[in-house]
Amino acid sequence: MRDVSQAERGPVIAALRAELRVQGLDAFILPRYDAYQAEYVAPHDERLAYVTGFTGSAGLAIVTMDTVALFVDGRYVVQAEQQCPGPMFTHRHLFDDLPELWLADHARSGWWIGFDALHLPCALYDRFYEALKKRQLFPVRNNPVDAVWPNQPPTPSGRIEPFPVQFAGQASSGKIANLTEVIRAQKATFLVETQPDNIAWLLNVRGADVAFNPVPQSFLLADAAGQVQWFVASQKLNQSVIDHLPDEVQVCAPDSFLPTLEARISAGQNVLFDPEFSPVAVRMALQKSGAVPLERTGSLTTAKACKNRIELEGMRACHIEDGIAWTEFCAWLANEVSRRAPSDSPVTEQEAEKAMLGFRQARPGFRQNSFNPISAAGGHAAMCHYAAQNGEAVPIPDSGTYLLDSGGQYETGTTDATRSFAFGASRPEGYDRAYTAVFKAFHALATLRFPPGTQGHHIDAICRRPLWDLGLDYDHGTGHGVGHRLSVHEHPQRIGKPYNPVDLAAGMILSIEPGYYEADRFGIRIENLFEIVACPDGFMEFANLTWCPIQTDMLLPDLLTNAERRWLNAYHSQLLDCLGSDLTPSTLEWAKKACAPLT
Amino acid sequence: MRDVSQAERGPVIAALRAELRVQGLDAFILPRYDAYQAEYVAPHDERLAYVTGFTGSAGLAIVTMDTVALFVDGRYVVQAEQQCPGPMFTHRHLFDDLPELWLADHARSGWWIGFDALHLPCALYDRFYEALKKRQLFPVRNNPVDAVWPNQPPTPSGRIEPFPVQFAGQASSGKIANLTEVIRAQKATFLVETQPDNIAWLLNVRGADVAFNPVPQSFLLADAAGQVQWFVASQKLNQSVIDHLPDEVQVCAPDSFLPTLEARISAGQNVLFDPEFSPVAVRMALQKSGAVPLERTGSLTTAKACKNRIELEGMRACHIEDGIAWTEFCAWLANEVSRRAPSDSPVTEQEAEKAMLGFRQARPGFRQNSFNPISAAGGHAAMCHYAAQNGEAVPIPDSGTYLLDSGGQYETGTTDATRSFAFGASRPEGYDRAYTAVFKAFHALATLRFPPGTQGHHIDAICRRPLWDLGLDYDHGTGHGVGHRLSVHEHPQRIGKPYNPVDLAAGMILSIEPGYYEADRFGIRIENLFEIVACPDGFMEFANLTWCPIQTDMLLPDLLTNAERRWLNAYHSQLLDCLGSDLTPSTLEWAKKACAPLT
Repeated sequence: MRDVSQAERGPVIAALRAELRVQGLDAFILPRYDAYQAEYVAPHDERLAYVTGFTGSAGLAIVTMDTVALFVDGRYVVQAEQQCPGPMFTHRHLFDDLPELWLADHARSGWWIGFDALHLPCALYDRFYEALKKRQLFPVRNNPVDAVWPNQPPTPSGRIEPFPVQFAGQASSGKIANLTEVIRAQKATFLVETQPDNIAWLLNVRGADVAFNPVPQSFLLADAAGQVQWFVASQKLNQSVIDHLPDEVQVCAPDSFLPTLEARISAGQNVLFDPEFSPVAVRMALQKSGAVPLERTGSLTTAKACKNRIELEGMRACHIEDGIAWTEFCAWLANEVSRRAPSDSPVTEQEAEKAMLGFRQARPGFRQNSFNPISAAGGHAAMCHYAAQNGEAVPIPDSGTYLLDSGGQYETGTTDATRSFAFGASRPEGYDRAYTAVFKAFHALATLRFPPGTQGHHIDAICRRPLWDLGLDYDHGTGHGVGHRLSVHEHPQRIGKPYNPVDLAAGMILSIEPGYYEADRFGIRIENLFEIVACPDGFMEFANLTWCPIQTDMLLPDLLTNAERRWLNAYHSQLLDCLGSDLTPSTLEWAKKACAPLT
Repeated sequence: MRDVSQAERGPVIAALRAELRVQGLDAFILPRYDAYQAEYVAPHDERLAYVTGFTGSAGLAIVTMDTVALFVDGRYVVQAEQQCPGPMFTHRHLFDDLPELWLADHARSGWWIGFDALHLPCALYDRFYEALKKRQLFPVRNNPVDAVWPNQPPTPSGRIEPFPVQFAGQASSGKIANLTEVIRAQKATFLVETQPDNIAWLLNVRGADVAFNPVPQSFLLADAAGQVQWFVASQKLNQSVIDHLPDEVQVCAPDSFLPTLEARISAGQNVLFDPEFSPVAVRMALQKSGAVPLERTGSLTTAKACKNRIELEGMRACHIEDGIAWTEFCAWLANEVSRRAPSDSPVTEQEAEKAMLGFRQARPGFRQNSFNPISAAGGHAAMCHYAAQNGEAVPIPDSGTYLLDSGGQYETGTTDATRSFAFGASRPEGYDRAYTAVFKAFHALATLRFPPGTQGHHIDAICRRPLWDLGLDYDHGTGHGVGHRLSVHEHPQRIGKPYNPVDLAAGMILSIEPGYYEADRFGIRIENLFEIVACPDGFMEFANLTWCPIQTDMLLPDLLTNAERRWLNAYHSQLLDCLGSDLTPSTLEWAKKACAPLT
C-alpha cells in the first residue's frame, strides 16, 4: 500500500470520518487483520495501510473524530512514526498501552464505537468489551473503509489447485473421516473453521490468494455426520479441483457462510471453534442461533501439526533441493564478494536476494519464496524484519558482514533457513565471540533429547544459555512451527519464552534460530528446520532437515567443546554426502573447503 | 492422627453422617486444608485424618450417605489404600478424577452439599460451583466434623514471640508503611491477609501453632490509612509481644475477623486479597459487604519474597552453623557405618536422623527442624516423602546407599539440604551413572546466569538436561522458595515444569534439588539453597548458601567436564575455608579427605 502519499492521507481520513458520521459512529476500530487473522493479507484487505500509511505486518488504529491512534509493537515503532508523521496521529505501543484501555479513557459516554466483526478475533473483541463496559460497541454492516476506498483492489481470486495425495499422504476423505470422529468424541454437532491453511490441509488443495502462503481464503463448516460445506469463491475453482474434492464436500458461496451458521445450527447444539483465530462474527452468529460454543484449539490445527510419513518424506526431499540452492548461493556469494570487491560494483543486498531466488528456481519442484527474504548487510541485519528497498543498492563489502534469512515453497514441502556471513579478515569487535555463542546456542538445542510432556517454553532457555553466559540475549522467539507446503509460520507449537501449552510431539516441524543483534553494527542468526522424532526409549529428539554450510571462519576455536566440534564436523560431512553429487563442480570444490573438519 | 484405629472408623463416619442429616445435608466436602491452606495443620485441624484415617499432607474427601470418596495425589495412592481399606471408601485420584466432577456425577438433584467456607480456597470452591451448577452448595455454620469429634485437640495456642529487628532487618512499622503505599497505589481501601507467614513477616513476630513453621495462625486486615487489625487469640500473646507491636496494630479476637470484614468494608470499596490462598469465606464476606474484590497475588507474598540485606546476612550466617552440623554428621555417618558394619547393631535410619538433630542442637541459634527429615536407606530413598516409622529399625548397611533431606530453623534463618551417600565399594547397578547425572544437573542450574524476566518454568529443563541425555528424569519440582525463619516451602517463586509467572529477582532464596529414583532400589538427590544476586550487567545468578561436602566417590570421572570439576573443587575448598576452624579435629581430618580436589 504505497499508492497513497502522505499528502493524500488527510483527505482519506476525512472521508472515513464522514462515512463514520453517516453510519452514526463516533469511532472505528481498525485492525490490520482480515477475516483470516494470518500473517499475510491480500491488497484488498490492506485497510490499515490505506487509511494510515503504516505498512507493518501487525498493528491497529482507532479512528475518532479528533485523532487516529496507531498502536504498533516494538519492531515497528520507528517505522510507524516515519510512515505516519504529523498531528493527525497519536502513536502508542500495542502491548504497553493497550488499545482498549486507551479507548476506554478517550471515549465519551454515549459514543457509538464501530468495528467489523469479521476482522476482530474473539479474544481482542473481548478485551474491548471488557474495557468499554457500558459504552456501545457496534458491529458495522458495511465496512466504512471499503465505502471510501475508490480504487480498492478486488477480493483475491487466486486459482486453487488440487494437492495430490502422493504429496499429502492421506486422501481428503480420510482426513474428513478423522475430523468427524473428533467432532463426535467432543460431543459436538458442528465444527467451524476459518483458517485457510487448515482448510487447505483438510481438502488437499492449495491456493494463491496472498503472498508466500499457498492457501485459499475460505471458510468451512463440518458436521458430526461427516458432511462438509466449503465457503469459497467459485471463480477460484476449476473442474479439476471440483473433481478432486471428495463427495462429502459441498461448495458454497462465501457470502452464505455467516447466514448458514445461523440457519443450520440449532439452539443447544455444541459447536467447536478456535477463539484465538476466529473472527468474533463467528461467535456472534453462534450466539444468535442459540448454539453452545466449545472454544478450543482447532482440531485441524492439532491434526495438521504432526506430519504424516509422506509429508515428512516430502519435507526431507525438498530440503535436499533447497540445500543445493543454498550451497550454490554460498559459493557464489563468497566468490563474487571477493572478486568484485576492488571494483565499482560490489554485490548488493538486492542482488544477493535475487541470486538466491535464481538458485532455487533452478531446483525441481520449486514454486516460490515462502516469505519475504531478509537480505541484510552490516547493521541492517540488526533489524529483524529488514527488507531491502527497491532502488536503494546496499553493497556487501568484502570486509563486512551479511545475513540471509530465506526459504522456499516446493511441491513437496516448505523450507526456511538463515546463515550469517563475514568476509575478509577484519570483523566488527565482538562479532566472532557473539557468532560463536550463537552457534553454541543452536547446537545446544539441536542436540536436546526430551521426554513426553515437554513444551516449547520449557526448552527455550537451553538455547539461550550460551548467550546468557556472556550477558547477551535475543529479543525474539527461538523456534516456530512450519507447515507442509503451507504457512512457514504454523501454529500451535513454538519455542520461546511465552507460555505455550502444546506438548512437542513426533512429526512436528520446528525451526531453531538463535541470534544476536547490535543496533547499527551487525546481526547474527543461524537457523535450520528440524523434525521431532521419537526414540525407542520414549524420549524425543530433533532430526535435522536443513543442509547449508555453517560458516566456520568466525568460530573461536578455544570456546568450542569437543561435542560441538564433533557435531559440526558430522553435519558438514553429512551435507557433502547428501548434496555433493548434485553440486556444480566449482561449488563442490568450494563446499569441500567450507565443510572441512575443525580439529 | 493415629488415635482412631480402623475398627473405630465405622462409628466415626456413622456419627458424621448422622450430624449431616441433623444439618439437613446430603454430602459434605472435607478437604485436608485448614483456614490457612499451608502445608502443616494443627492437630485440631486434622479433620480429614480423623474421619478417614488418611494422614497424607494433601487430599480431600467427599462424605455422602453411601460412601466416602477419598481423593489423593500420586504420592499417596498406596498409602491411602493402606490407611483407608474396605468397602466404606471409594478411592480416586486428586488430579485425574477431579472431585467436583465426581460429585457432579454422583449428587442427585435436590441434594444439599455442605462445606466449611473457611476450609475451601476460592479456586477450589469455584471448581465445585462450576461443576455442580444448579445443585445446592451450602456453607455450614458449624463444622460437622468438630460436632462429632469428642476428643478433638484444642485450637492451637502456640506462644508468639517478638522477632527482633536486628534479625528482621526492617521494623514492622516500616513494612506497614510500605504496604500502605501498595494498597493506595492499587486504588484499594483494604487488604485482607490470611497467610500466617505473611502476617508473621509483616509484624516481626514468630509463633508455634504448627510443626516446623514458626508462624502464628491469625488473620489481618490492613487499610489505606495505614491501620492494621490483627485477629489473633489473646492467649498466644504476652506483654513483650504487645510492647513490640507498632502503634498502628490493633489486636482483635479471631472470631471477629469475618464480622469485621462485613462491618467495616462498604459497598464499592476495592479490597485486595489473594484468591489462591484465601478461604472462600473471605470472598463471601466481601460480597456481602458489596466490596469489589481485587484478586491478585498477595502484596505481602511479593514483598516477603525478596529478602533484605539483614535477612540475607542471617541466612548466610545460619548456613555456616548448619554446614558445621552437616559436616559433623557426614563424618560421623561415614565412621559409624564402617565401624559398626560387622557388628549386630548397624546404624539405622532413625539413629541417623537423631544424630543429625543432635549436631544441629549443638549449634548456636538452632531452634528446631524446618521439616520432617527424610532419612532413607536403599529403596526407601525412592519414596520422595519417606518418613522412618517409629519402632521399625531400618539399618544402613556398609555396602548400601542412603539419602538425608533435612533442614533447620535458626534464629537468623532457615536451612534445607539433601545429600546422597553410598558406602563400600559395591553399589547398585546404574547408581554411579545416575549420581553423576544428578550432580551434573545440579551444577548446570547452580552456575546459570539469566536476564531479568526469567521465570522458574523457563530454567527447569536446564537442570533436567543431563538426566534427559540418559533418558532419565525426576517427577518433582527442581526448586522451591524458602522463607527467612519462616516456611521452608515459600511462595511465590519456584522452579519446575508448571507455569509460574513470577520473575526471579535478586534476594529470593531458592533450592536447587534434582534427583533420580528407581522404585525399591535407590534414590538420589543433591540439594543446596541459593540466593539470587544481581550482576553489574543486569543479569542475575545463583549464589550458594549451603555448605556440606558433596560425595565424590560415586562420580564417574570420565563423564565430568572440566567446568564441573573446577566448580566442585572450588566449592569444597570454600567449604573448608568457611567451616574448617569450627569443625572438631577428627571431622576436619575427614573433611579434608572428602573435599580433596578431583583431578
